[in-house]
Amino acid sequence: MNIKEKIEAQAQKANLAAAKLAVLSSQEKNGALMSMATALETGQGEILAANREDVSIAKERGQRSSYIDRLTLNEKRIAQMAEGLRATAALPDPIGQTDYGVRRPNGMEIRRVRVPLGVIGIIYEARPNVTADAAALCLKAGNAVILRGGSEAIRSNTVISRLLAEAAYKNGIPEGALQFVEVTEREAVDVMLKLKKLAVIIPRGGAGLIRHVTENSLVPVIETGTGVCHTYVDETADLDMAIKIAVNAKTSHPSVCNAMETLLVHEKIAPKFLPLLEKAMGSKSVELRGCPHCRMICPNMKAADELDWSTEYGDLILAVRAVTGLDEAISHINRYNTGHSETIVTQNLVSARRFQREVDAAAVYVNVSTRFTDGFEFGFGAEIGISTQKLHARGPMGLMELTSVKYLIDGNGQIRE
Amino acid sequence: MNIKEKIEAQAQKANLAAAKLAVLSSQEKNGALMSMATALETGQGEILAANREDVSIAKERGQRSSYIDRLTLNEKRIAQMAEGLRATAALPDPIGQTDYGVRRPNGMEIRRVRVPLGVIGIIYEARPNVTADAAALCLKAGNAVILRGGSEAIRSNTVISRLLAEAAYKNGIPEGALQFVEVTEREAVDVMLKLKKLAVIIPRGGAGLIRHVTENSLVPVIETGTGVCHTYVDETADLDMAIKIAVNAKTSHPSVCNAMETLLVHEKIAPKFLPLLEKAMGSKSVELRGCPHCRMICPNMKAADELDWSTEYGDLILAVRAVTGLDEAISHINRYNTGHSETIVTQNLVSARRFQREVDAAAVYVNVSTRFTDGFEFGFGAEIGISTQKLHARGPMGLMELTSVKYLIDGNGQIRE
Repeated sequence: MNIKEKIEAQAQKANLAAAKLAVLSSQEKNGALMSMATALETGQGEILAANREDVSIAKERGQRSSYIDRLTLNEKRIAQMAEGLRATAALPDPIGQTDYGVRRPNGMEIRRVRVPLGVIGIIYEARPNVTADAAALCLKAGNAVILRGGSEAIRSNTVISRLLAEAAYKNGIPEGALQFVEVTEREAVDVMLKLKKLAVIIPRGGAGLIRHVTENSLVPVIETGTGVCHTYVDETADLDMAIKIAVNAKTSHPSVCNAMETLLVHEKIAPKFLPLLEKAMGSKSVELRGCPHCRMICPNMKAADELDWSTEYGDLILAVRAVTGLDEAISHINRYNTGHSETIVTQNLVSARRFQREVDAAAVYVNVSTRFTDGFEFGFGAEIGISTQKLHARGPMGLMELTSVKYLIDGNGQIRE
Repeated sequence: MNIKEKIEAQAQKANLAAAKLAVLSSQEKNGALMSMATALETGQGEILAANREDVSIAKERGQRSSYIDRLTLNEKRIAQMAEGLRATAALPDPIGQTDYGVRRPNGMEIRRVRVPLGVIGIIYEARPNVTADAAALCLKAGNAVILRGGSEAIRSNTVISRLLAEAAYKNGIPEGALQFVEVTEREAVDVMLKLKKLAVIIPRGGAGLIRHVTENSLVPVIETGTGVCHTYVDETADLDMAIKIAVNAKTSHPSVCNAMETLLVHEKIAPKFLPLLEKAMGSKSVELRGCPHCRMICPNMKAADELDWSTEYGDLILAVRAVTGLDEAISHINRYNTGHSETIVTQNLVSARRFQREVDAAAVYVNVSTRFTDGFEFGFGAEIGISTQKLHARGPMGLMELTSVKYLIDGNGQIRE
C-alpha cells in the first residue's frame, strides 16, 4: 500500500470504531483510561529507550536546546502523562448530557443531547506527551482519534501510542479507535487533510504548520495556539501592579501561546512607566523593541519595526509602543492580535468595560496576567488546545468542545399540516 | 475595479461595520429591524416590478414551474418577509448572555459571554425572501452580512437589499453591515470563498452549490440543507400510524430538505405494509422504486438501483427497501443518509432507544414525521438553515448558532506562578 491507501485504510477503521465508541458507557471508557495510564508506567523502560534515540538524533541534527527540552521524556514526565490519563477519567462525561428539552404544543417531546464528533485528526509537532493527552480527551468524549506527530518524536510516539492502544483495546475500546500515523513523510499530513471521514482536524504546533493545515484542508479545522498577546497599561494603572503583570506575562514561560508579545502604554504615563519597565525587564534579560516615542523616553531601547507588532517571539523579546489612549490601544490590538489573550491594567471602570467589550479575542482580562488562558486555570480540566477562532470553540478546548449535539424527538404519530 | 477588488472592498467595509455592530444594544438593533420591515412594505411596488422582470426572463429561459414558483414574489410574500423581520426583532438577543461564570481560588472572576461571529457570508439560489430572512438574523445576532444571491433573482435581490440597507443605516446600523454582491458572474462566489475576513460562509441551495462551496472555501463553511431522510417501519409498527407518517413525510412538501426520500420496512411486516403503502402513495401520485424483495410483494413497483438509495429526489418519488431488522435499517441509514432527519415507526421500546442512539443524524424521531425539523417547529423561531454537519451547529440554526463566545476575566493583579 502507498501512503495514501495506508492512511485511508486507517481512517476507514477509525470510522467503524467511532460508531461503536459513541455508545460505550462512561464506566467502560474510564476503565480503559485507567488501564492506559498503568500501561505507560509499566512500559516506561521501553518509552525511555525510544525517546533516547529520538533525542540523540535531534542533537546530531543540531536542534536548539528549547527544542530538545520539549522532546525529552523522563520518569517524571511519563508519570505526568499517566496522571493526565487518570485525571481525564475523573472528569464528568459530556456524552449523553441533555442541555435543552421541551414539549411542543402538538405533544412531541424534543431533547438535545451531547454526542461525539466522530473521528478527530490531531497533527502535532515535537512534544510526545501530546500523544497521551490528546488520545485521552478524544476517547473520553467518545471520539476515535488519528494522531500524526512530528518525525523527530516518531520513535517515542510509536511506542506510546502502541502501549495506549493495546491497553485500550484490551479494555473494551473498539479496535481502530486510537491510531497513530507512523509515516514520517510530509505527504501523510496532506493525505489527512483530504480525509472526508474526519469530523475535524486540530493542528498543534508552530505558525507554519497551522497555516499549511488551514489553507489546504478539506476537513474542518480548529485553529489553536498562535498568540500575539498584548498588555495595555492605561493612564490610571497602578504602576506596581502593571510591572508585576507585565513581567509575569512576558517571562514566566516565554515560549507558550499565552505569553505577552507586545506592551502598549498610555503616552501620559509612559515617562514614569517605561523606565520602571526597562529596569524590571532588564533584570530578566528581556530585550525591548520600542516605537520612536518610547525610544525618546528610553534611548537604550532597540527600534521596533512594523513586523514586530505582529510577531510571536516565543522568547525574551518584547515590543513596546506608546498610544494616545484607549481608542488607539484597542485598534492596535484588533489589528495585530491573533484572537488569543489581551489584558488591560487600569483603575478606571469605563476603560475596563470598553476594553472587554471592544477587544476581539478569546480571553480579555482586567488587571490579570494573560498567562491564565488555559483549561486547568479556567477550571475545565485538561485541554486539547486554545482555539483562536470563533466557530465551534473559542478559548481553552476541553471535553465539551470535542462533542456535538443531536435532537431526539418522541411522539405518537405527529404529522405536519 | 475588477470583481475581486470590488468584493474585497465590500468585505473590508463589512469588517469595520462588524466591530461597531457588535456593541450596539438590542434596542438599537430591534428598532432598525422594525424600520426595515416598513421599508419593504412601502417599497413593495418597486420590489414587484423588479421581480416581474426576473420572472419573465426565467420563463423565457424555460425554467421549471417549481423554480418559477420559488422565484415569484407577490403582496403576500412581501408581507411575510416584513413579518419575518418583525418576528426576528421580537426574539431574545443572544449577545451578552453569560452562560458560565466562576470565581477561581486566586480570586479572579471568569465569565463566558455571547458575542457575534463577525462577518457572515451567505451564498444562495433562487428564493429572494432569503435576502430579508438572512439579513435579519445576522444583524440581530450582531453580525455584518455579505449576501450573494443567484443571478436569476438579481433584480429582486438588488432592490430588496437596497431598501433594507437604507432603512438599517438610517436607524443606527453602521454603514457596510448589510451588503449585497451585485456581481452575477460565478467568479464572485470564488472570490468570496477566499475572503479571510469572513467568519463563516453558509451556502443555501442545491447539492451542486454546497459541494462547490465546501470543496473550495478557505473560510469555514456550515453545510446546510441536503436531506436524504428515511422512515423505518419496524416489525411492531402501528400500520395506520406508519402510513400516515410516511404519506406526510413524502407528500406534504416534497421539495424541502426534511421530506422523506427512502422508506425501509422490516421484512416480516412488509407483506402486510407494502400493499397499503402502494395504495396510499398511489393516491398521491407518488412513484415507488423498490428493492427486489419489495417488488416480489408489489410487482407494479419500479426497480430501485444503487443510486436511488443516495438520491434526494425533492419530488414525488420514493425509494423502498425491505430490511431484515433494526440492525440492517440502522446500517443502511448510516451509510446513505446526509445527517439530516430520520424516523422509526415502532411500538417496541428497545428498538426506539437503539434507533435514537445509533442513527447518526441531526434529528432522530420516534413515531413522528421527519417534516418537523425546522427552527419554528423546534421552538427557536426563524432559522438560517438546517446544519447537517457536527461542528459548531447541528440541526436548525437560529440566532444562537450565529454567535461565538468570549471569556472576560476580572482581577486585582493576579499573576501565574
